Amino acid sequence: MERIRSWACFGGRQEVWRHNSPTLGCAMEFAVYLPPQVAADNAARLPVLYYLSGLTCTWENVTAKAGAQRYAAEHGLILVTPDTSPRGLGLPGEDEAYDFGTGAGFYVDATEPPWAKHYRMYSYVTAELPALVNGHFPADPARSGIFGHSMGGHGALVCAFRNPQQYRSVSAFAPIVAPSQVPWGEKALGGYLGPDRAAWAAYDATQLAATTAWRRPVLVDQGAADEFLDKQLRPQLLQAACVSAGIPLTLRLQPGYDHSYYFIASFIGDHIAHHAAALKA
Amino acid sequence: MERIRSWACFGGRQEVWRHNSPTLGCAMEFAVYLPPQVAADNAARLPVLYYLSGLTCTWENVTAKAGAQRYAAEHGLILVTPDTSPRGLGLPGEDEAYDFGTGAGFYVDATEPPWAKHYRMYSYVTAELPALVNGHFPADPARSGIFGHSMGGHGALVCAFRNPQQYRSVSAFAPIVAPSQVPWGEKALGGYLGPDRAAWAAYDATQLAATTAWRRPVLVDQGAADEFLDKQLRPQLLQAACVSAGIPLTLRLQPGYDHSYYFIASFIGDHIAHHAAALKA
Repeated sequence: MERIRSWACFGGRQEVWRHNSPTLGCAMEFAVYLPPQVAADNAARLPVLYYLSGLTCTWENVTAKAGAQRYAAEHGLILVTPDTSPRGLGLPGEDEAYDFGTGAGFYVDATEPPWAKHYRMYSYVTAELPALVNGHFPADPARSGIFGHSMGGHGALVCAFRNPQQYRSVSAFAPIVAPSQVPWGEKALGGYLGPDRAAWAAYDATQLAATTAWRRPVLVDQGAADEFLDKQLRPQLLQAACVSAGIPLTLRLQPGYDHSYYFIASFIGDHIAHHAAALKA
Repeated sequence: MERIRSWACFGGRQEVWRHNSPTLGCAMEFAVYLPPQVAADNAARLPVLYYLSGLTCTWENVTAKAGAQRYAAEHGLILVTPDTSPRGLGLPGEDEAYDFGTGAGFYVDATEPPWAKHYRMYSYVTAELPALVNGHFPADPARSGIFGHSMGGHGALVCAFRNPQQYRSVSAFAPIVAPSQVPWGEKALGGYLGPDRAAWAAYDATQLAATTAWRRPVLVDQGAADEFLDKQLRPQLLQAACVSAGIPLTLRLQPGYDHSYYFIASFIGDHIAHHAAALKA
């Protein structure tokens, strides 16, 4: 694993690393923010928070635009921001659409050819990447949280609901909450998992809500002026499922906000405080 | 003047406007952040802070990457972020280098052909743009501050030192402080103003320090790991001139920081607090 970028930032270091991923079968990059508390006491393990990005993004969008480092520095959290898909494989059709293939891994382990061999972002995010992070940085795996935006909000909710022992906190910005019921999700899950919708349930947060053991607080912020709200996001589906299941979801509809990083930047301080409260308890 | 983008952001609005500039003879875009205090009381005039960007930038770099809106919202300041040069003129040689022509107006009024007719960023920033801003937004011209980065830090210092009645606060990130003595400045001032170095003095903050009536606090942050520090920036030249002149300059050398927006984001809260203290006094 090789460090390819490093910047001083809010008293800590914003770094970017490249590694060969056996899970995905390609080289991958991820960014990691090491707060000033790392420098102060390298021996102490710090809470670690994973952020999953949305369609078309790399590690760079959230790293450059969200202003998250300030809050990670305040709370003493390590922040890990992976890419959104395998890269550079040259699979047929991989680069034809913004919402499938490159930049659109949807945090699933594909089962359909030709995707099944490489598009395994669920395993990458929940297993390979945490092992790398825990091995190279002073991250405390017992204090891991996860959050994300849009497709990445979907990924965060799925990872948490399927692994309540691995993650202690979860939140999302404008997540796709019910991919089985919206066009983005139907295209992605159909393409990666095939037409049998029973297989999709493992990656549908709204369906997972009925069976997960997750009972910790869930924070979701949604812009009321988000252009994807009614067609692709539909957070009320998750809200109903959480009410039925007894999962404490706080869904905040934020008037005037859209789907952009200006929305995320405005509320990421609240989200990181939400995670810090759980991870530092 | 036409609003072309608008995002909710930290309780206010991040907007982008386009207008035809008589000063520059082309269409220009600028961004303006209107803090939540505008919505609360549109009749009240708020302090206004101008940010001048560095080489190659548009309004978008600082708007997306600096995280300034949070602090502008906290302090109730309007934040205006113009472009760095005229655009789209098609002048010969305009697009050949990153450090001259498009994206590199250096905040001077050019006197050399073919630049003299259009490259008048000093007049645009100090006269045309403030008139537009004061006419369209609830900005209080009596409470104006200015800051910037690199080439824009140079511009901010020059604008303040030449107009101590117009600006009540100034600061800079990694500014070019003595363009007459560094390669970036020699190329730009030579190209826009001609070979007579006497004409350059009006755009050299270190030279202006000897004659300006400016006596308010000046804040400059400089990354100690900035790759341009020794060759292009040389803040100690400004420091010596300010000591001689009795200008209260605080120059902070920040260990480990480079020239990037990760540096700016880390300290822009301090800068906006510096301006707010002067503008709200």
